[in-house]
Amino acid sequence: MGRYGIKNSTAIRVDNLIMFSGLTGLDLETGAVVEGGFEGQARHALRIFEDILADLGLTLDNVVKVTCQLRNIDDFATWNDVFLDVFDAPYPCRTTTGAPLVVGDIEVEITASIEPRR
Amino acid sequence: MGRYGIKNSTAIRVDNLIMFSGLTGLDLETGAVVEGGFEGQARHALRIFEDILADLGLTLDNVVKVTCQLRNIDDFATWNDVFLDVFDAPYPCRTTTGAPLVVGDIEVEITASIEPRR
Amino acid sequence: MGRYGIKNSTAIRVDNLIMFSGLTGLDLETGAVVEGGFEGQARHALRIFEDILADLGLTLDNVVKVTCQLRNIDDFATWNDVFLDVFDAPYPCRTTTGAPLVVGDIEVEITASIEPRR
Repeated sequence: MGRYGIKNSTAIRVDNLIMFSGLTGLDLETGAVVEGGFEGQARHALRIFEDILADLGLTLDNVVKVTCQLRNIDDFATWNDVFLDVFDAPYPCRTTTGAPLVVGDIEVEITASIEPRR
Repeated sequence: MGRYGIKNSTAIRVDNLIMFSGLTGLDLETGAVVEGGFEGQARHALRIFEDILADLGLTLDNVVKVTCQLRNIDDFATWNDVFLDVFDAPYPCRTTTGAPLVVGDIEVEITASIEPRR
Repeated sequence: MGRYGIKNSTAIRVDNLIMFSGLTGLDLETGAVVEGGFEGQARHALRIFEDILADLGLTLDNVVKVTCQLRNIDDFATWNDVFLDVFDAPYPCRTTTGAPLVVGDIEVEITASIEPRR
């Protein structure tokens, strides 16, 4: 599951649960943070997860939990807008806090299920 | 499972595991941080989890993991006291770190099992 | 599973998944942070997880997810080296952020599976 050339696994399944590595708004071809500021990075990270899920035959509807860390906690309102726009109801569980980050302005991690949430 | 009117799900089950959204010491009717300082917020957040668990026919004995972020890491001793008071042995697994928070002085997240821990 | 005398459980199994409490580079006999700076602490924490896994008849090959918080985000490169040295490919999923910590310079948490990752 190393589609993006990072050494840690992008996703590992145990029973019906799939755990993922955290991602930020990095262009994984160039290693550069994508354009578009915080919102651009947030949407990009979720798009990569969508790609990884698609490789597994799944969609964002299989995401049951989203854990997010923001470099600037003031970006929470924007993050909330992106979350509600990208996911459909019933929304995944979610936890958001602030944190110093290695790179980028957001670190997102998902957990998915083989069954779509409902 | 949206008992408290927040848009993200409060709890989602996969196999025998139940994942939850993070909570803080918010009065979910008024949206205000509850009184009683850090300890009051910590106890309130765990009480909301107890309510959500009860809706699922479960209790705090079904909690297997507690992940907690503190706005002020110096509140750890108080958090530890609350944790040992609210839960019974054998205690859940636990990880506590500090973090900037969107609101409140503590962010708590639990993971539960359909089977009580032992 | 309280081998190390901490009151919260060190590990709890649900289905084929095993959740663990977060650990840092503490000598669990003396309660003191181990020597060797950040790298010594990181290796020590992973060694304790190896011991706990051994008690369960498992090895580091059963680790599917590693969540890590660094007191100083600049220690990421060292953490990455330790991670790649201690684990074998295919590597676990991983998320790393910064955070104020109760004690030590690293907080590590693992999730394991009854089946070795592949």
